[in-house]
Amino acid sequence: MNNDSTSRIASQLREWIAGAAPGSRLPSTRSLVADYQVSPVTVQKALHALSREGVIESRPGVGTFVRAVRTAQPSDYGWQTAALRSPQAPLRPASTAMRSTPNDVIAFHSGYPDRELLPERLVRAALTRAARSEAALSRPPAAGLPELQSWFAHELGAFTPAGITPPTPSDVVVLPGSQSGLSSIFRALVGHGQPLLVESPTYWGAILAAAQAGVRVIPVPSGPEGPDPDELARAFRETGARMFYAQPSYANPTGAQWHARCGEQVLNVVRENGAFLLEDDWAHDFGINTTPLPLAAQDDSGHIVYLRSLTKSVSPAIRIAAVIARGPARERILADRGAESMYVSGLLQAAALDVVTQPGWQTHLRSLRHQLQSRRDLLLTSLLQHAPQAHIEHVPKGGLNLWARLPDGTDVELLARECERAGVIIAAGTEWFPAEPAGPFIRLNYAGPNPGAFPEGARVLGEALSRTVG
Amino acid sequence: MNNDSTSRIASQLREWIAGAAPGSRLPSTRSLVADYQVSPVTVQKALHALSREGVIESRPGVGTFVRAVRTAQPSDYGWQTAALRSPQAPLRPASTAMRSTPNDVIAFHSGYPDRELLPERLVRAALTRAARSEAALSRPPAAGLPELQSWFAHELGAFTPAGITPPTPSDVVVLPGSQSGLSSIFRALVGHGQPLLVESPTYWGAILAAAQAGVRVIPVPSGPEGPDPDELARAFRETGARMFYAQPSYANPTGAQWHARCGEQVLNVVRENGAFLLEDDWAHDFGINTTPLPLAAQDDSGHIVYLRSLTKSVSPAIRIAAVIARGPARERILADRGAESMYVSGLLQAAALDVVTQPGWQTHLRSLRHQLQSRRDLLLTSLLQHAPQAHIEHVPKGGLNLWARLPDGTDVELLARECERAGVIIAAGTEWFPAEPAGPFIRLNYAGPNPGAFPEGARVLGEALSRTVG
Repeated sequence: MNNDSTSRIASQLREWIAGAAPGSRLPSTRSLVADYQVSPVTVQKALHALSREGVIESRPGVGTFVRAVRTAQPSDYGWQTAALRSPQAPLRPASTAMRSTPNDVIAFHSGYPDRELLPERLVRAALTRAARSEAALSRPPAAGLPELQSWFAHELGAFTPAGITPPTPSDVVVLPGSQSGLSSIFRALVGHGQPLLVESPTYWGAILAAAQAGVRVIPVPSGPEGPDPDELARAFRETGARMFYAQPSYANPTGAQWHARCGEQVLNVVRENGAFLLEDDWAHDFGINTTPLPLAAQDDSGHIVYLRSLTKSVSPAIRIAAVIARGPARERILADRGAESMYVSGLLQAAALDVVTQPGWQTHLRSLRHQLQSRRDLLLTSLLQHAPQAHIEHVPKGGLNLWARLPDGTDVELLARECERAGVIIAAGTEWFPAEPAGPFIRLNYAGPNPGAFPEGARVLGEALSRTVG
Repeated sequence: MNNDSTSRIASQLREWIAGAAPGSRLPSTRSLVADYQVSPVTVQKALHALSREGVIESRPGVGTFVRAVRTAQPSDYGWQTAALRSPQAPLRPASTAMRSTPNDVIAFHSGYPDRELLPERLVRAALTRAARSEAALSRPPAAGLPELQSWFAHELGAFTPAGITPPTPSDVVVLPGSQSGLSSIFRALVGHGQPLLVESPTYWGAILAAAQAGVRVIPVPSGPEGPDPDELARAFRETGARMFYAQPSYANPTGAQWHARCGEQVLNVVRENGAFLLEDDWAHDFGINTTPLPLAAQDDSGHIVYLRSLTKSVSPAIRIAAVIARGPARERILADRGAESMYVSGLLQAAALDVVTQPGWQTHLRSLRHQLQSRRDLLLTSLLQHAPQAHIEHVPKGGLNLWARLPDGTDVELLARECERAGVIIAAGTEWFPAEPAGPFIRLNYAGPNPGAFPEGARVLGEALSRTVG
């Protein structure tokens, strides 16, 4: 009968536990004795049984509790396979450029400048001021803080020659980073199933955003001076595309900067085809030997959609970018942003505006230019000396990256693994090609941490190349 | 010949100006005289001509400059009509709930709590601390700050009864607001062209996100105690849908809170149909007479995708939300977020975590509960007294809104315009219906500014109703 009482109480307690939150305290032994009209020994036996099952735990001197950490059951979510259907776009693994790495490796892979290249003092001061301001508790308009819209419009307007109408603040839509802009622009201006021309190679994030939007990506080969306008015209004709995505200044990954004449010709081809040029001015703040002149400043006919980000140059925590577009295109983009996220944090907008309107911002940009120059040149000479097999066909006049062609037949994935084993992270060029890679390339970022280690990194790369090239 | 020289110089200067940035300084008269080998009078005449054309301006004693503000040409972006093709989803006007209004109106329309209901001190302190922290200059992992993932997992885990495996931090994906979550979930788990069941009426933002994702929305009628499980089962069978979107606690707009039994039945129907329930726990912090118990705490089989936002309760500037999902579903959502925006500002994540882990947060939530209660009750009695035609069928036990049924035949759009003329903004119920509205409804938010004006607002509404009801 004692056994029966034990299992009866255990089973009643099990019911009670099933309805209780983890960490809940069980009634004391004394009150259980009173409630169930049994001996303390019976209660203890029942509690021992439950404890062995792992549903409760005793803390001596404190009490008995519903266990917070329960034995995890092996999970089987196989039923989801049918519910989820096939993915609409191939699921790509996260890009190498987004990897976080420990401090003791030499990191040539990152897409972001190291924090020593960021305007730390300006950023902290701006965020502190924003924390005290109205922006900390209010909701800005969907298209952005009017003052920030003005700043973006004015920046592009300053490049606009006489005879061309400069953009107005109302042409600007503020974005939570340029990746969101790419996604919205592809959804809103290209659309599911429609073709999009892109430079090849080009930014992996754009290829990813296009895939997510269900857009068909069509590569147009692009060299150190830009794409061949005839090839571009042919691609428009063949595909019926209405948009060409490009980075005319310090293209990622190649560092190419289009010649002025190439820009004009591309703009003409775009106009003749009743199409848009999406100009991704990602490296606007990263000029070294030249200053990027946005092509968008040459256009007031609504053919160029201009994308400008502050994330990389201000701080990755202040994710602010803007798109400048005119006519119905701008309305479509704004509508997509509304459905996607309604508005952009006014705090981040206020902080971004604060940073870029301080006198210290111009000083910072000048110093950044010098730092990028010495980093780029150090990596170039390190490669020449220690890894001459990595050939830099074009020394970029700005941006953050060197694009190195490797000897024919190099297995770049194997090379990347070999380098990583020796503490050096490089990005295989494959990710930047929308279709088959045109050859074995790697991208080396010279804006990462610890430039003093560049020669050592180049040495590791050179040795790995000697081993892996057949 | 003097005239000829003047126009020759004017035309050459015009060319120079076309290539110059606005604000550029023209060469001095003296150097123009030297360059063009003409008299100072001729140069002056040419400059006068250009000045009359509006392309340059003289600032006496300073110099002559390319005009920065140019006469705007009337723009014609008609060519875009063809390039943009038809919109993939109907372009909806911005929701009434997102309107900003001047301080002197009585605002019953907003979707956001007034700032006097926000934890201002906690928010400012958290943002100031975040500005000094590592989060101000670094990039967090794609799925979110690990500590914040833990907090979200733990919050839901605290509701999880024994016998059910609580969620782990790695089931959490941090989002820049729940609207972004809705968009990603519809794209990643439903997909273009596929059906989605939703309560009717339901949150306009979800209807909007579904339209953007190209998802077919199928309404399932829902009452004060939740949807009819049989009706839901029928809808699953008829449509082959694999997801049901719902707000089981204080649904927006009706304020309905599902009975526990209804929750169980819905979960069973969802399981039987191999489907997902997307539980949008938007009002988790807005309980008044009850505490919301997330249905997701009852499920460890991956059938419930749980969406939880902090934007409305912490601050509209700290746009942080999270989705908790298990199995491949979570991977699909994370992949979509990666393509859409790569990561969420670590600064906002750090600040959100700081706010909700302060002891003051619990104090704030308790005070918020009392404030919402008195605001809700004041609006209820005001309506009873001054606008008895607006019938509240169900007094919500939480949330921010009253959902009022108006006399049959009321033209709600006309009513809204009449009220606005008298300084009272209301939201026509139409926006919350995915298909035809089930009757004339309005949504009245009792979390807006200046509750002292509720009686006056109700009086204006009552009078407008007397005038507009036929």
